[in-house]
Amino acid sequence: MKRRNFMNQLGAGALISGLSIPLSAATGSEKAESSKNSEAVQHMVIFVLKHDKGSLAEAKFLSDARTILSKIPVVKEFRVLDQVNVKNDYHFGFSMVFANQMAYDTYNHNPDHLAFVEKRWKKEVARFLEIDFKVH
Amino acid sequence: MKRRNFMNQLGAGALISGLSIPLSAATGSEKAESSKNSEAVQHMVIFVLKHDKGSLAEAKFLSDARTILSKIPVVKEFRVLDQVNVKNDYHFGFSMVFANQMAYDTYNHNPDHLAFVEKRWKKEVARFLEIDFKVH
Repeated sequence: MKRRNFMNQLGAGALISGLSIPLSAATGSEKAESSKNSEAVQHMVIFVLKHDKGSLAEAKFLSDARTILSKIPVVKEFRVLDQVNVKNDYHFGFSMVFANQMAYDTYNHNPDHLAFVEKRWKKEVARFLEIDFKVH
Repeated sequence: MKRRNFMNQLGAGALISGLSIPLSAATGSEKAESSKNSEAVQHMVIFVLKHDKGSLAEAKFLSDARTILSKIPVVKEFRVLDQVNVKNDYHFGFSMVFANQMAYDTYNHNPDHLAFVEKRWKKEVARFLEIDFKVH
């Protein structure tokens, strides 16, 4: 709660802040100051479900994914997102941040993640694209 | 500087925080509390340049894009990113956050943005995919 209160004090500019990996990479002049999070990775996947848009099955998939994946300890800032650019034909996105490659590897071997991929992702997702970002 | 100092106090978990649109959308139970940033859009583009990897022309394109686009007032949290997922054949990404669709529209009509697209993007980018995220 403390963090949110602080963010509120910063006003809208801070509240809508996006990638903070690292926070000080916003400009070239600041980039050199930061080394703390040079290894952080934002992992995203954009996808289309086999379910009808607006269906209960769609809502359940997104809700279960949030519940299952967000509680994996190395997963930070898990987000369920709508993909709204009309020049892109993916409908949804998940986004999460890993502190470093080791945390990402831990996620890739996590049993809850692996079970989700086998039991839900492979059955309910029609197509997808993974995207991993590191600050340049 | 005040903001960065605060973020440092929060430790690595906060420093690597990802999408904060809205901050309180991290879990389902918190989502209902927040309406302040439901209109925020994270705009991203992943792309491949015509330039050789590691070339001066590549570095100049990324640097000039950062300089030109990050100073457009509606553009928040501008990031130049490396796309590092090997199952995805795009090399770079830009990410920015708009407070709402009006800010996004302002960006799309901004003369510095339009000049960058005409003079640089159309000439130097081989292929790209735009992605826009709103919190689900």
